[in-house]
Amino acid sequence: METKLTSKSKTVVISPELPFVIIGERINPTRRKKLAETMARGDFSVVQEDALKQVEAGAHVLDVNAGIPGGDEPVLLRGAAQAVLEVVDVPLCFDTADPDALKAALEIYPGKALINSTTAEEHMMARVFPLAKQFNAAVIGVISDESGVPTTPEARLEVARKLVNRAGDFGIPPEDIVIDCLALTVGADHNAGRVTLDAMKLVRQELGVNLNLGASNVSFGLPDRKILNIAYLALAIGSGLTTAITDPTVPEIQTAILACDLLTGHDEYAMRWIKAFRKRSQAAA
Amino acid sequence: METKLTSKSKTVVISPELPFVIIGERINPTRRKKLAETMARGDFSVVQEDALKQVEAGAHVLDVNAGIPGGDEPVLLRGAAQAVLEVVDVPLCFDTADPDALKAALEIYPGKALINSTTAEEHMMARVFPLAKQFNAAVIGVISDESGVPTTPEARLEVARKLVNRAGDFGIPPEDIVIDCLALTVGADHNAGRVTLDAMKLVRQELGVNLNLGASNVSFGLPDRKILNIAYLALAIGSGLTTAITDPTVPEIQTAILACDLLTGHDEYAMRWIKAFRKRSQAAA
Repeated sequence: METKLTSKSKTVVISPELPFVIIGERINPTRRKKLAETMARGDFSVVQEDALKQVEAGAHVLDVNAGIPGGDEPVLLRGAAQAVLEVVDVPLCFDTADPDALKAALEIYPGKALINSTTAEEHMMARVFPLAKQFNAAVIGVISDESGVPTTPEARLEVARKLVNRAGDFGIPPEDIVIDCLALTVGADHNAGRVTLDAMKLVRQELGVNLNLGASNVSFGLPDRKILNIAYLALAIGSGLTTAITDPTVPEIQTAILACDLLTGHDEYAMRWIKAFRKRSQAAA
Repeated sequence: METKLTSKSKTVVISPELPFVIIGERINPTRRKKLAETMARGDFSVVQEDALKQVEAGAHVLDVNAGIPGGDEPVLLRGAAQAVLEVVDVPLCFDTADPDALKAALEIYPGKALINSTTAEEHMMARVFPLAKQFNAAVIGVISDESGVPTTPEARLEVARKLVNRAGDFGIPPEDIVIDCLALTVGADHNAGRVTLDAMKLVRQELGVNLNLGASNVSFGLPDRKILNIAYLALAIGSGLTTAITDPTVPEIQTAILACDLLTGHDEYAMRWIKAFRKRSQAAA
């Protein structure tokens, strides 16, 4: 199944038949003081720097989050999106829980965006899906509903099915739903990582939809988080993951994703791998 | 499904419900000059060093290969096995294409060994399975038959099925067959890695047997092989791999496997991860 996203002039396709799609996560003021401070006063220069850096590092899509405590999120999200569009030309992913902010951003967006995200809670789907339909956007559907996050892979599949079916009621086709099976922290529950991997396999097999993951929660509270995050990314790709919200400016993450692309048949003649190796060698020399 | 291997006093169980089983690959004279030279003159001191180092580094099982051009393999394999048994107490995996050498080693082995390996070629199975039955050993079945290595996951599943069924004819139960889906080099065929991952998923789903892999061929001829091998190991674990023949004395491999264990629910309270982290920190300090 192909999830197509577009910017003014570019199309990015998420599909198991194509290279892994990297959604750059850095434009998010949570826990980034300088970014938060500049955004709060309507200064989007750091946002623009982050946009350029991430695209240079291999991001295919950029996540844009403008959630600042006390901030006017519709104004900030729209402003941040416009600032990003001035400097790069990749599809955007609007990361907000505020429907007004989402609408404000979608209104000025000149392509097919990705919405991050809706849960399977009825009140969330009833707000997000109409906007997705109106503005022709794809949606990340997070496997969580009124009862919380299900604890078994089978129950997570049912929540995924609910998301896809309910989207269908609003006229949104399955290929425009990207399911996030939610990686909770293994520090709290040692089975958390495994349940998510098994859920991903089931969802891919039964629904055929694309799969997204924020792969850094899984390591929360543990030492050597970077290694854990990279290992989880590879495990998840092995289980059917087709896109992730991550930081491509971390060299190890970029390299790991290139390795996975090569090893899953998405790098003919290993050309991208060899090119990146040469770049690393030159940088080290 | 549980594949049980034993030494004189230890039992190692290969199972998706248990930590990943590391089969140490170092006792193999191919491309190891010093090891080959010492083994050739009946000196097994390097063999013993390798055995100790690998077990110390986390190997649960040791592969023993004594294939030296011009060497008396039955004598060498038996001698190497005896030397290993003098210094460590883990199950052994006998790595030979010579039935006489296999028999010589199995005769002196005081437990349930793993045989590495048979293909699905009739003349191979007819030699290896009777020995496995006679000495109550488990067998690695490599997905290759008279027609070579099949190019599609579905065709590889059929070869795996043939191995399991034929073993059954000799009275060997499915849990004593560990299937190796063969990772060929992506440098020669960019789909090689992917076909193997897809085959592993199919074989696990349809036959439920344990899966082994030698994960280093996949990167042959490419730069930065270590990163590729580690990424492939994680991708493969995400696709159902339960054991691998690899080198646990490479710190990055050891760490990656520990990370995968934690992330697949096989490290309660992250105790092994945190212990290894402390050891790394102390070593670095």
